[in-house]
Amino acid sequence: MHVPIPIRGPFSIPFRMLGIKSSRMNPNICTLCETMFRRIKKKKQVIVPATVLFADVRGYTSFSELLDSPQIINLLSGFYEDCGSVIWARDGLINKLIGDAILAIFNFPIEHEDHPRQAVLAGIELQKKCGEMKLIDGLKDIPVGIGIGIHTGDISIGEVGEACRDFTAIGKVVNLSSRLQGAAMPGEVLITEDVYRQVAELFPKAETRVCHLKGIEKPVSAYVLHA
Amino acid sequence: MHVPIPIRGPFSIPFRMLGIKSSRMNPNICTLCETMFRRIKKKKQVIVPATVLFADVRGYTSFSELLDSPQIINLLSGFYEDCGSVIWARDGLINKLIGDAILAIFNFPIEHEDHPRQAVLAGIELQKKCGEMKLIDGLKDIPVGIGIGIHTGDISIGEVGEACRDFTAIGKVVNLSSRLQGAAMPGEVLITEDVYRQVAELFPKAETRVCHLKGIEKPVSAYVLHA
Repeated sequence: MHVPIPIRGPFSIPFRMLGIKSSRMNPNICTLCETMFRRIKKKKQVIVPATVLFADVRGYTSFSELLDSPQIINLLSGFYEDCGSVIWARDGLINKLIGDAILAIFNFPIEHEDHPRQAVLAGIELQKKCGEMKLIDGLKDIPVGIGIGIHTGDISIGEVGEACRDFTAIGKVVNLSSRLQGAAMPGEVLITEDVYRQVAELFPKAETRVCHLKGIEKPVSAYVLHA
Repeated sequence: MHVPIPIRGPFSIPFRMLGIKSSRMNPNICTLCETMFRRIKKKKQVIVPATVLFADVRGYTSFSELLDSPQIINLLSGFYEDCGSVIWARDGLINKLIGDAILAIFNFPIEHEDHPRQAVLAGIELQKKCGEMKLIDGLKDIPVGIGIGIHTGDISIGEVGEACRDFTAIGKVVNLSSRLQGAAMPGEVLITEDVYRQVAELFPKAETRVCHLKGIEKPVSAYVLHA
């Protein structure tokens, strides 16, 4: 996992001729590393401490009704680019793009001790970038908001399934961050107390909100952050 | 797109040595076809008539709280295998596996004139298979239900994004089938009127239900099918 392979510049040419290039999930690792990693982990899920970030474009279905396909693609492309730039800059992995939503993981495979902090800062930067996103609907510009949810803890990551399989993260941490994202208002980053403890000094005045989340028995105390 | 390449049996060996094998999205097409297809379509979305099927495990978040990771993986693996077998048998493409949900497309890239019918039959078969899924929680078996939504019409398919990109289907047909899936009760296949017209003779007594779906202005008249 730690063989240095040039993935940019002239030294990368022979590698690129062999098909070894930047990974799509994180351009700072190569496809060989990704493949080796997938093989090692195949049918062998690993449990790793990580921070999970979900982000989603609010009102996507509603404004999809107003727009034609090239406009929707344009909007999603912009969103994906913004996600890529802020998440990769902090060594996060984009595990899934799901229409108007993304799932990113921090501390895997590139490790950072302060992964909750990296995820929160990426979330705040994403809100800043997306704050400028506008939906052009004929005469008026409609602002587009995104909601973000972040939780941290042990996740299970690897291949699920046999003939029909997928490389993904699963577990309670993934579910809770997804549900928190669903509860976030446009412009908000909702984080759990476990995450807040690691970033409290950056956001000393963060308000708290008690969230009742579908499928999660106990109410969750979330901290609300803004860009 | 129509070069026959052996992907199974002894004739497939030289191709497999070159890395050409069955596609993961549909094992009846090869990875070469998939790559060529991706290249052709890169940055060039195509509009195609297709049928979209969403399926999702009901109560996944709730029972994830009760189970440990190997149990969740076991359940998801079973679900993915069931999806693969019924969807591929009818030449559908599994475009996305999203935790407990899947997005499948019929009539692309393998065309079938009766794609709405193929999708509905795959949905019914999936309900039959998943009807036997049980969640083992210590002493008692908890039945696991899935919900399915199906709609048909023109979809836009191709790569979205640049550095951070994804091969996916988008558009109103995708959104509506996703929302219908959300409205389906465990065991139900909810289909739109456009789909029902193509399968009416198979389900002459299907009940209808008016659904108010998030983000979709007008109420939708859905037909409810059971396995």
